[in-house]
Amino acid sequence: MEKTLRELADFVGGEVYGDGDLRIKRVSPIEQALVGDITFIANPRYEKLLEQTNASAVIVSAQGPKGKKSQLRTDQPYLAFAQIQRLWHPPPARSPLDPGQLRDGVKLGKDPSIYPNATVCEGTTIGDRVVLHPGVYVGENCRLGDDVTIFPNAAIYSGTTIGSRVTIHSGTVIGSDGFGYAPEGTRYYKIIHAGSVVLEDDVEIGANCTIDRAVTEGRSTWIRRGTKIDNLVQVGHNVEIGEDCLIVSQVAIGGSARIENHVTLGGQVGVAGHITIGHGSSAGGQAGISKSLPSGSFVLGSPAAPVRRKRREFAALSRLPDLFQRFREMEAKLKALEEGKREDRGDER
Amino acid sequence: MEKTLRELADFVGGEVYGDGDLRIKRVSPIEQALVGDITFIANPRYEKLLEQTNASAVIVSAQGPKGKKSQLRTDQPYLAFAQIQRLWHPPPARSPLDPGQLRDGVKLGKDPSIYPNATVCEGTTIGDRVVLHPGVYVGENCRLGDDVTIFPNAAIYSGTTIGSRVTIHSGTVIGSDGFGYAPEGTRYYKIIHAGSVVLEDDVEIGANCTIDRAVTEGRSTWIRRGTKIDNLVQVGHNVEIGEDCLIVSQVAIGGSARIENHVTLGGQVGVAGHITIGHGSSAGGQAGISKSLPSGSFVLGSPAAPVRRKRREFAALSRLPDLFQRFREMEAKLKALEEGKREDRGDER
Amino acid sequence: MEKTLRELADFVGGEVYGDGDLRIKRVSPIEQALVGDITFIANPRYEKLLEQTNASAVIVSAQGPKGKKSQLRTDQPYLAFAQIQRLWHPPPARSPLDPGQLRDGVKLGKDPSIYPNATVCEGTTIGDRVVLHPGVYVGENCRLGDDVTIFPNAAIYSGTTIGSRVTIHSGTVIGSDGFGYAPEGTRYYKIIHAGSVVLEDDVEIGANCTIDRAVTEGRSTWIRRGTKIDNLVQVGHNVEIGEDCLIVSQVAIGGSARIENHVTLGGQVGVAGHITIGHGSSAGGQAGISKSLPSGSFVLGSPAAPVRRKRREFAALSRLPDLFQRFREMEAKLKALEEGKREDRGDER
Repeated sequence: MEKTLRELADFVGGEVYGDGDLRIKRVSPIEQALVGDITFIANPRYEKLLEQTNASAVIVSAQGPKGKKSQLRTDQPYLAFAQIQRLWHPPPARSPLDPGQLRDGVKLGKDPSIYPNATVCEGTTIGDRVVLHPGVYVGENCRLGDDVTIFPNAAIYSGTTIGSRVTIHSGTVIGSDGFGYAPEGTRYYKIIHAGSVVLEDDVEIGANCTIDRAVTEGRSTWIRRGTKIDNLVQVGHNVEIGEDCLIVSQVAIGGSARIENHVTLGGQVGVAGHITIGHGSSAGGQAGISKSLPSGSFVLGSPAAPVRRKRREFAALSRLPDLFQRFREMEAKLKALEEGKREDRGDER
Repeated sequence: MEKTLRELADFVGGEVYGDGDLRIKRVSPIEQALVGDITFIANPRYEKLLEQTNASAVIVSAQGPKGKKSQLRTDQPYLAFAQIQRLWHPPPARSPLDPGQLRDGVKLGKDPSIYPNATVCEGTTIGDRVVLHPGVYVGENCRLGDDVTIFPNAAIYSGTTIGSRVTIHSGTVIGSDGFGYAPEGTRYYKIIHAGSVVLEDDVEIGANCTIDRAVTEGRSTWIRRGTKIDNLVQVGHNVEIGEDCLIVSQVAIGGSARIENHVTLGGQVGVAGHITIGHGSSAGGQAGISKSLPSGSFVLGSPAAPVRRKRREFAALSRLPDLFQRFREMEAKLKALEEGKREDRGDER
Repeated sequence: MEKTLRELADFVGGEVYGDGDLRIKRVSPIEQALVGDITFIANPRYEKLLEQTNASAVIVSAQGPKGKKSQLRTDQPYLAFAQIQRLWHPPPARSPLDPGQLRDGVKLGKDPSIYPNATVCEGTTIGDRVVLHPGVYVGENCRLGDDVTIFPNAAIYSGTTIGSRVTIHSGTVIGSDGFGYAPEGTRYYKIIHAGSVVLEDDVEIGANCTIDRAVTEGRSTWIRRGTKIDNLVQVGHNVEIGEDCLIVSQVAIGGSARIENHVTLGGQVGVAGHITIGHGSSAGGQAGISKSLPSGSFVLGSPAAPVRRKRREFAALSRLPDLFQRFREMEAKLKALEEGKREDRGDER
């Protein structure tokens, strides 16, 4: 496929600088780009590469420097790159339906791709253009919207509701039982998990995640529109995650926690059960959050604390062994002073 | 289904307060309950909701306050709730046998539910009323007790022994090789893992866990009766976990570690290999336990330490930047004192 | 199977001490060994068990003590044990081919074992003696070398290249999309992941890992020869891991990080994106590495620091509450001195 630079600029709403008739054959990262390619610079730090790249054109910030090379200038170069990238990577061709594992009472939308070895159970409704790869399991009475893609060997337990344009990667488990037991003497008695899970539109879930169903019938663990979840993330029963959150890999969110909109949790963060992370908050990797955070918080560390305070703590901690040394010296000086004073006074008790 | 309040009280061994003939249609959480429902208050903190709920009856502590609403009074309201919940959620209907993937020499008990795309390999023995969902793999020479349920796409490697009433959720892997290599120059030579895994009765394992087999033939990684394991937990080769432990999500237990009975490990805890966690111990989320703990320990932090000491450390750490400030002030004062002293003495060397 | 002690010594290039004609029936760990078994002592700490074990012969260090029992003496007893172990555990018998799920254009090598419910997609090339267990998914245009074994329900996305003698355990996902989104207002726009994954020869990957594909076409997330990865490990897009690394369970490696050769990362370690871990470095369990490390580093803690410094910090931290106490005492003394001084001077302002 080829597009002119002007066609690409029009497609993303940007401006051409240089030769709009330039024919572009590929999108490439800046160090690898060849003649005929378009690349991008999203970070001003890399503007020095502008004249070095072999690319024929570069997507740059509308505020960035010009030069000898043709440019596509836009306010959001990284977004423009992501949009243009799709032109060269259309969705894959669809598979014919393999009806072998569709049980009774399944309702299918238009143009489904249900691969061999996928299972769809009784009472489930599936929207248009849904792709279920081999080994996918969708339990009873689920509802999937349009343009849902579920990759091989993911398992969706019964009663799950999935919006449109949702992607779920391989090995992810949606709707297994939460971790709830009532003590019975020294043993544990299982709490039945009769609730469900809701994933709203435009949610994406990475590989090998686990999202538990809610405890009681009529309630759901709930992940709202546009939230993106990386790999190996644990979401406990009755958790609510707001819109447009980013949850990086290996995060664990305890039962009944509430994550508001636009929250970012770094890799391996732990969030205790029953707390609230306020709107727009972020947590650095490995943070351990055991108390609710107000909106706009930015925390680090375990136990987590606001970033400025935590950075001061980390800095102080690294100087702590020296403090002990200085402290011993001061104790010695003070003792010398005290003894000197006693001598001055002629203390002889 | 409907039950009278008296029938429910008799079922759990509790007392009726108010109208024993009240007809109960559903079990619900307190904020959602409607007329006709029974709900519960397990924590005295929520007793204020007693008069506000729309529920027709409430399961409460035998010591709790009474009021206008009918009650089921019992010493263990949360357990009673869990027991009553089961009345409304009988086990799901069984599937007819799909014999396609049963290899030779498999012995099946009564009323099996082996779903399409499940695989059971040579020499495996399966008890009564076992449910193997689609995509489940059970390797050669395994033994499964009665009433075992394995959810879609879990994999049980060869030689695994599973007791009765064991539940294993989707994506969990039992019996894969442990992480063992002998250095061979600068390379690594694989240690064959010829041992196995034993899960005793009433064990429950969440989704996407990994439990490694033991190294040598005749030995097993061993999880004892009644222990409950959450999602994404790693259990290394030759680990032993005692009875009635609770292992929360994303815990990692190093090879040959020994967890005694009634231990609780919070989310994301790490336990080093070859150590022992004594009977009845607990560890808070993200604790990093690198040394054996005596019975009844309660630890926090990484490296883990007893909770009282660790809380004092955390508190001291948060005040550490101030300590540096106060320390500098004290150094200045001390210097002033020392100089004053020299002046007093007329030091002029 | 039986071998004489001399045959075993010849096989591993060691020396016989005692009776070379001794017939060995089994390899066993030292506490469990019976008459007829050979066992090993790799750690001098256990040499005291030499005379207590029931084993007929012991693999020991060429520098170790002798005694009444026959020995196989070698410079590397643990490696010799691992090598001898293989004699008693030959590779399992091969399954006949089940061609059901082979799509068009798949090229198979010699003696494949493709089990029922495995899927191999268009354009994939498979080497000799490859074993694909039930539920394995191999996407389009992959290349697998010789003697590759993939355990049940692992998923290999399209375009993955796998060398020879690679083992991948159950539930692992290779080549799913990395976590990359361009902000679009307050929402996120998905970055297409058109790159791939390369696993070189002799790589072993445990169960339920996730290894993301690279972002752009022509680039790969890359794991080099001989590296061993434990269970539940996350490897982000465009990561490079060098040769002969050991990555213990639940490690997370952020996108575009570079791990050089011979690096060891302990359990639950987190590595930030875009940093380099130098050749031969190690990190203790739960370390949080957010900055590049030079070759030969050994770090602990979160944030990670060199082990000596971090141990001093941990020690200082544990004594910090006492420091506060001593500090308060010193402040009191200093105040007394200051007041004494004022009295001496007759300060009365």
